[in-house]
Amino acid sequence: MSTPDLFATRASRMKASEIRELLKLLDQPGIISFAGGIPDPALFPADAFANAFQSCLGDGPHALQYSVSEGYLPLREWLVGHMQQIGIECSAENILITSGSQQALDYLGKLYLSPGDTALVGWPTYLGAINAFDAYEPCFDRLDLKANRRAAEYAAASGDGKIKFAYLSPDFANPTGETVDRATRESLLDLAEDLNIAVIEDGAYQALRYDGEDIPPILALELARKGTIEACRTVYCGSFSKTLSPGLRVGWVVASREVISQLVLVKQAADLHSPTINQMSINEVARACFDTHILRVRATYRRRRDAMLDTLRQEMPEGVQWTKPEGGMFVWLTLPQAHDGADLLSRSLETVQLAFVPGRAFFPDGSGRNTIRLSFSNSDEATIREGIKRLGQVLRH
Amino acid sequence: MSTPDLFATRASRMKASEIRELLKLLDQPGIISFAGGIPDPALFPADAFANAFQSCLGDGPHALQYSVSEGYLPLREWLVGHMQQIGIECSAENILITSGSQQALDYLGKLYLSPGDTALVGWPTYLGAINAFDAYEPCFDRLDLKANRRAAEYAAASGDGKIKFAYLSPDFANPTGETVDRATRESLLDLAEDLNIAVIEDGAYQALRYDGEDIPPILALELARKGTIEACRTVYCGSFSKTLSPGLRVGWVVASREVISQLVLVKQAADLHSPTINQMSINEVARACFDTHILRVRATYRRRRDAMLDTLRQEMPEGVQWTKPEGGMFVWLTLPQAHDGADLLSRSLETVQLAFVPGRAFFPDGSGRNTIRLSFSNSDEATIREGIKRLGQVLRH
Repeated sequence: MSTPDLFATRASRMKASEIRELLKLLDQPGIISFAGGIPDPALFPADAFANAFQSCLGDGPHALQYSVSEGYLPLREWLVGHMQQIGIECSAENILITSGSQQALDYLGKLYLSPGDTALVGWPTYLGAINAFDAYEPCFDRLDLKANRRAAEYAAASGDGKIKFAYLSPDFANPTGETVDRATRESLLDLAEDLNIAVIEDGAYQALRYDGEDIPPILALELARKGTIEACRTVYCGSFSKTLSPGLRVGWVVASREVISQLVLVKQAADLHSPTINQMSINEVARACFDTHILRVRATYRRRRDAMLDTLRQEMPEGVQWTKPEGGMFVWLTLPQAHDGADLLSRSLETVQLAFVPGRAFFPDGSGRNTIRLSFSNSDEATIREGIKRLGQVLRH
Repeated sequence: MSTPDLFATRASRMKASEIRELLKLLDQPGIISFAGGIPDPALFPADAFANAFQSCLGDGPHALQYSVSEGYLPLREWLVGHMQQIGIECSAENILITSGSQQALDYLGKLYLSPGDTALVGWPTYLGAINAFDAYEPCFDRLDLKANRRAAEYAAASGDGKIKFAYLSPDFANPTGETVDRATRESLLDLAEDLNIAVIEDGAYQALRYDGEDIPPILALELARKGTIEACRTVYCGSFSKTLSPGLRVGWVVASREVISQLVLVKQAADLHSPTINQMSINEVARACFDTHILRVRATYRRRRDAMLDTLRQEMPEGVQWTKPEGGMFVWLTLPQAHDGADLLSRSLETVQLAFVPGRAFFPDGSGRNTIRLSFSNSDEATIREGIKRLGQVLRH
């Protein structure tokens, strides 16, 4: 028997995330890593979680029992208020709790994509989104918001397949750290109307703004046009991973009841429900301290971003360009054309013990060889300054 | 816009689990419910979990941080010993932690099934398996272990599609409570060899045997034939939901490294990893008290099963047949042909406030109208006796 012969056709598209494989190699002392997009564990509200778990378990055995696929109602109710703060009026029935926003992307791929359908994504885009959607065997086409590409061109490129959605992370996107401005969000909504497609808005970093003014989420802009979420085509994915704790795996989806009720069926069939006690304890911690906690997280990451941008200005040789993110966890570097990010990583690890992520993995078409992603979230300022100096050394050689 | 037009073709196959929808209606006082297949929360080792969560959180912030897709290594190592106890020699590399065994079924469907492929399942079978596989648009054919159906007949029935696996729960299956004997397990392995397909062995209830002798898992029997798990086609799915806690959503898959490494990619793309602290605390509780705790669970459920079988003998009118399970949570009733389980449920709820699950949902072909499933796990003996008396009343009218 050859086992792979039994696998579905989709299995041939599955590959290990270069980033997660890379992360396994970085536990050695002395290495400075700007690789993982992971929050600083020192910022987790650990005491609040200890209290929350204790109180949830003290409250009877239901914290350990099965619960409903929709998610824990008090948490969904807290999220109604949280979404309202960012301009999205909805009810608990418009919210599904997922096991991280990664699971939301998987379920949305499952709900929308038949083999050969087209998903529009940025080049570059979040690698985890490509991997999640890939399981449903779509084609990817480039969502090019800067080029003002017209609906007819997208439609022509999709051939016989149907375009199902545009996926993007409009605030401080992974991997570039860039933000989509309000006018471009509006024109994306126009495009979605013209193409009659859904918009998947990944808000994983939305709460991590360090300066500049808030821009309403795409779903909020669509709501302003249509008056009710039930008429909206935008699906918003949120996450507690970058704010309270990634290890609890709690995220959420906000959309019309029509979409949510279908996603509930997807979840029921796929894992029954997200863990009960995790939802209960996130709910307690969010109610106790989300708003104050997020201020502390922002202040810390802001200083780290500033240290990185500062040192880049001082240390980068001519010809290197980088983004100036207003939030999030990432700075994106574009090197002169002759450079290869993967080669640079090998040399950096070898000669100066510095790690980051080569940018090519974030491009569905394998372009972007001369780009790299740096994360500033999990290193203190001194380490960031030292790391960027090392990067400068390697680049100048 | 019509949103459903944007959905994938698979969406038309998704429907709410009748059982889970039913469970929502049963919170009213006075109702005796044999409906849900849920463990008695009074049996959860709540104190052990309270200690475990506290100790995991006290151990530093990594309990709240991202972790690897494969699962928490100490838990996988404990499972190596646990699997060895039931005759399955493997290493931690043969184990993936999933969010309940339901998620394992979803990921196995994703890994094996392309649209039009055939999955062999029992008629009846676990409804959650049908729903999980359905997302990948397979055909279902009947795995008929009693009829000794030959490989050539299965192959002919699959038409142009490829048969990918046989799915079954050999111990105290949901919904019938029946056990597959050793000779039949061996002949299933012969069939799998002839057809060159995988076997998905759902061991969700495996630890809940109340009498009779243990029968080796199918994977153990295949291992005895082949000498190494790396040569085995059987994939074993386990779960802590029926033993320690369902709400934490911790299950596992045991298979060859070839299959596990592919499933790791599936999980990485679908939800990154199962919650860190849940795996850590299950590990602590399993190490502290799994073996003693399971004795208590078995003793309690054995008394409940006995009470149900006892009262069925006393109260059932002629023409009603039922299974005599050696473990698990379910007794399966076959009523005279003229009866309809769904009608009986309506009448029972209305006249005697008794709930159970009509059997038809467990048949992929919609047959089984005259069957019902009774669960004895979540009611004490007095309630079980009263409930079966009520069932007798309704049936005699």
